[in-house]
Amino acid sequence: MAFDTEHEPGVAPKPPAETAGFRLNHTMLRVKDPQRSLDYYSRVFGMRLLRKLDFPEMQFSLYFLAKLDDGEQPPEDVAERTQWTFSQRGILELTHNWGSEEKTDFSYHDGNAEPQGFGHICFAVPDLDAAVRWFDSNDVDYVKRPEQGKMKNVAFVKDPDGYWIEIVEPARLGKLGQS
Amino acid sequence: MAFDTEHEPGVAPKPPAETAGFRLNHTMLRVKDPQRSLDYYSRVFGMRLLRKLDFPEMQFSLYFLAKLDDGEQPPEDVAERTQWTFSQRGILELTHNWGSEEKTDFSYHDGNAEPQGFGHICFAVPDLDAAVRWFDSNDVDYVKRPEQGKMKNVAFVKDPDGYWIEIVEPARLGKLGQS
Repeated sequence: MAFDTEHEPGVAPKPPAETAGFRLNHTMLRVKDPQRSLDYYSRVFGMRLLRKLDFPEMQFSLYFLAKLDDGEQPPEDVAERTQWTFSQRGILELTHNWGSEEKTDFSYHDGNAEPQGFGHICFAVPDLDAAVRWFDSNDVDYVKRPEQGKMKNVAFVKDPDGYWIEIVEPARLGKLGQS
Repeated sequence: MAFDTEHEPGVAPKPPAETAGFRLNHTMLRVKDPQRSLDYYSRVFGMRLLRKLDFPEMQFSLYFLAKLDDGEQPPEDVAERTQWTFSQRGILELTHNWGSEEKTDFSYHDGNAEPQGFGHICFAVPDLDAAVRWFDSNDVDYVKRPEQGKMKNVAFVKDPDGYWIEIVEPARLGKLGQS
């Protein structure tokens, strides 16, 4: 196969054999208050909490969440489910440093204010209008509603720590970048 | 199904119907020099560049990469491939603000130095020892080699902008969190 992107400067001609089986598994974000974040991601985005890992010696906990498709069934057995979790794509890992939820003046950095770096995570949704109605009924904060700005087919909402979440409907994006 | 994590404070009892079809599609990171980042992610991690989107008016470009499994075949047609790209899990989006590669004193923030926020992305690999040999043969920088620190089954490498990439072998992690 040959993509139109194949000759972009820097791009290797084909994936080296040594990278066979590599998978982009997860993205880790630190969160101030896990109860609030778990409510948000499990209720507003329908994610399931697959595993919680506690590290009492280092005073932190890790929460691994996935948005499962209908019928997708992770193993019930904990060890198998841990292995399954680390074998998927599209996992969200939330890190809670114990006690951060008690600190009144504390917040994490969203990566979009200075100093910039990380930008956002993105959810694909089957129907952007229905998703916006759902977010509105859940009082979700927006960075940009679909009707704001230049890109009418894209919304950005904020999670409880202020991290940006892009919302797209793939069927509306086919023409993107083709003028 | 009932996970051991189901009664964690904050977790919704089940995914709301309104979230059916939602998928965690991508994570966006800003990069200083796309040629260097494309070389790194396509060569060292075997990712394919699925789409490049240029926004001349706003002076930036977006690069969407995926680590495909053997036999996975995205559409050749550009519009179909764009739609396919936004329908997947585990996509990496790199944002290049034009000209950043020319700025000698410029760098992005990795989220792990202060102010903290975003932590890392993670690749699952089928064989951690083989992956470490591969990274070593490519002169990849480490945050932590597997043998360093407490977690011997986990490595962290750095991408060209200093973003952390965790490396795990799922089969070694089944016991994690079960002492």
